[in-house]
Amino acid sequence: MSNQELNLEQIAKTAKKASYKLASLSTEIKNRALLAVAENIKNNKNIILNKNNDDLNMAKSFLESGKISQSIYDRLKLDDEKIDVMVEGIRDVAKLEDPANKTLWAIELDKGLELYRVSCPIGVIGVIFESRPDVITQIASLAIKSANTVILKGGSEALNSNEILVQIINEALDKVEEFPKDTVNLIKTRHDVEEMLKMDEYIDLIIPRGSNQLVKYIQSNTKIPVLGHAEGICHVYIDEYADLNKATRIAVDSKIQYPAACNAVETILVHKSLSQNYLPELIKGLQNVDIKVKGDNRTWHVSHEVIEATEEDWKTEYGDKIVSVKIVEDINEAINHINTYGSGHTDAIITENTNNAKIFMDLVDSAGVYQNASTRFADGFRYGLGAEVGISTNKTHARGPVGLEGLVIYKYKLFGNGQTVSEYSGKNAKKYTHKVIK
Amino acid sequence: MSNQELNLEQIAKTAKKASYKLASLSTEIKNRALLAVAENIKNNKNIILNKNNDDLNMAKSFLESGKISQSIYDRLKLDDEKIDVMVEGIRDVAKLEDPANKTLWAIELDKGLELYRVSCPIGVIGVIFESRPDVITQIASLAIKSANTVILKGGSEALNSNEILVQIINEALDKVEEFPKDTVNLIKTRHDVEEMLKMDEYIDLIIPRGSNQLVKYIQSNTKIPVLGHAEGICHVYIDEYADLNKATRIAVDSKIQYPAACNAVETILVHKSLSQNYLPELIKGLQNVDIKVKGDNRTWHVSHEVIEATEEDWKTEYGDKIVSVKIVEDINEAINHINTYGSGHTDAIITENTNNAKIFMDLVDSAGVYQNASTRFADGFRYGLGAEVGISTNKTHARGPVGLEGLVIYKYKLFGNGQTVSEYSGKNAKKYTHKVIK
Repeated sequence: MSNQELNLEQIAKTAKKASYKLASLSTEIKNRALLAVAENIKNNKNIILNKNNDDLNMAKSFLESGKISQSIYDRLKLDDEKIDVMVEGIRDVAKLEDPANKTLWAIELDKGLELYRVSCPIGVIGVIFESRPDVITQIASLAIKSANTVILKGGSEALNSNEILVQIINEALDKVEEFPKDTVNLIKTRHDVEEMLKMDEYIDLIIPRGSNQLVKYIQSNTKIPVLGHAEGICHVYIDEYADLNKATRIAVDSKIQYPAACNAVETILVHKSLSQNYLPELIKGLQNVDIKVKGDNRTWHVSHEVIEATEEDWKTEYGDKIVSVKIVEDINEAINHINTYGSGHTDAIITENTNNAKIFMDLVDSAGVYQNASTRFADGFRYGLGAEVGISTNKTHARGPVGLEGLVIYKYKLFGNGQTVSEYSGKNAKKYTHKVIK
Repeated sequence: MSNQELNLEQIAKTAKKASYKLASLSTEIKNRALLAVAENIKNNKNIILNKNNDDLNMAKSFLESGKISQSIYDRLKLDDEKIDVMVEGIRDVAKLEDPANKTLWAIELDKGLELYRVSCPIGVIGVIFESRPDVITQIASLAIKSANTVILKGGSEALNSNEILVQIINEALDKVEEFPKDTVNLIKTRHDVEEMLKMDEYIDLIIPRGSNQLVKYIQSNTKIPVLGHAEGICHVYIDEYADLNKATRIAVDSKIQYPAACNAVETILVHKSLSQNYLPELIKGLQNVDIKVKGDNRTWHVSHEVIEATEEDWKTEYGDKIVSVKIVEDINEAINHINTYGSGHTDAIITENTNNAKIFMDLVDSAGVYQNASTRFADGFRYGLGAEVGISTNKTHARGPVGLEGLVIYKYKLFGNGQTVSEYSGKNAKKYTHKVIK
């Protein structure tokens, strides 16, 4: 099957058709489908591990030749425990509140003419991600719960694992009464992705999860709306009114807790009043946990222990145990720096001054603005969203960690009994009551 | 000034800076700004009418030579009463609820660590529209209320009117304390629009209001999200369980009440059981009010009074007193037809059967799905939204008639007292409470 030429237009068209049917499924059927999928994965552990082993054997040679990194290899590797986590993850999604068919707002336009704004699935969603096969079950279960069809493209290193997982998912879904076929689709090549990006007639949203390069390529090559983030250039600003104990702890955690994460800090901004008495201690604190510190010219004058930073550093997501430090005149310079060089992901102020916190949180134009907390909290699970589709730095639709609510939109349902607009126009026009129902 | 070369990048950059400041304004200041704008327009009626007269003089020659239509000329023309309506419109926006700074959801992650999802402006919005100068005050007032900066491009026929209106708006805003400059910007040429579409670094949303051609051009030529609709191919499906009295009334109203509107019906689908006893009466009803009726082959066999329709008709927005009629086997064929040929705008079913209404409203993938009401109700004012930015057939962000709520997104504000993610990870990890506050 993997050698067959896929007809992307056919897949997209069929997925669109399936999406119409999905939209009318009850919560009960969707949850039944999720539990069936979980069960089938549990029952087919060995087959999955076997197929995963095929991928691992292939990957081993790439690892040896340095084509892939150890961390990619580790993320590719499934084991008993990881499959248990997958199964549990799917069951958890079944427990989440159904995001579709919720009345968000309702208004009586006139007696006997009622308008309801009701949440509904978006339609067809394309998801492109790298290596980890557990993303398959995560995205598939979110799609099922929100009643969207998905077209998945995983990393080529994981092709055997991905294929068997999608096959097992569909085997389970096929047996669920009323559940439409073609809800979960897998495509396989880079060429398929290029074709998919052209299908704006059928695909309603693309979610890329992966490298900056991947996301930027997709954003630049499709008319379909893209949900996600290319870069995560996060900041911690240590204000003149900071509790310095909290400052160091949060600065260190924001980087070291997972240096490669998109919500890790890249630049620490320090109020000038702290440059003599506190900055050297901060730099030492960072270096003590093996973080390489770069600094602007003023910082360098305070501590020759740092490597001098250039303009390029403010725009760089190191993705590694490196941070840049800059001394700022005041909170306004900090805010300007963040709005100029940041990526709109997550930025924190360390301050005990409520007013400064308010100014920072109102004026910094990012998905997450924090007072006295680590930027690493930016995550769907930590936010209590139950599951995460991805993190978005978009300014429309959904922003920050996106849970199930990002996979729905709404439609307006109007219930009348024969009303025409003519009756409400011109002389002797009937009046709208516009009485909010909900 | 109109001959000066505008530097679009400079305008977009400055607008972005202004947008950061705008975001922190209180409702009170925004309303004060709106009332000041309304007052200044009222006080400068004569100047506006003079400038509008310059546009009208120019337009007259185009009218005579057939370059523009009478309806464009009429929409261009301002008078005392139209300016009063403008002023009233701005005051009405001041009365609307502030869409920004609303807590949409809040959750305690742990004691002393609280997360708020708070609505906030999108940032910089580009709006492109044709001829009517009253769009300037409408969009400017919605932008002020929602704290977004706007870059406006009106029709070139209205350039003098648009320039004076923007000048008067800015004169008033300049005097409002704390209100940032460069909130309302005007650009003037087609070339400016092309430049604007490239400014995805600074502009967050484009709203095109105008011809299909304009909207499609913009959708195809920018990476910036576009909110709007290209086509309005709306349907009325007359079900076998229809009250036929309602059916004819709604079918006629959906077309004749304003044939050129995007929410006017283009195709009427009729259940086959009605073809002998009702269809001829419907056709007569439509023709009686000067609607030209086209019909599929089956319809033609029922009534030779119709012009035969082709496949092309199902994809056509006539924008005129023309409808096409098609006989369908059942509700499923009606739904398939709408999902295949429709534009996702507004579609109605005429039926007394609650179950059929539910099926139709669940499965038709359109922004508006109606039971027993005219498609012409699809409008921000009629929906009670208070004001309308435009009508969207998008599947993300905002759908249907879009009011102020479509001009905001949200940010996450997290308030902590020094928490790190390390404390919540690994052995002896602290537990999240995830207690929903709002």
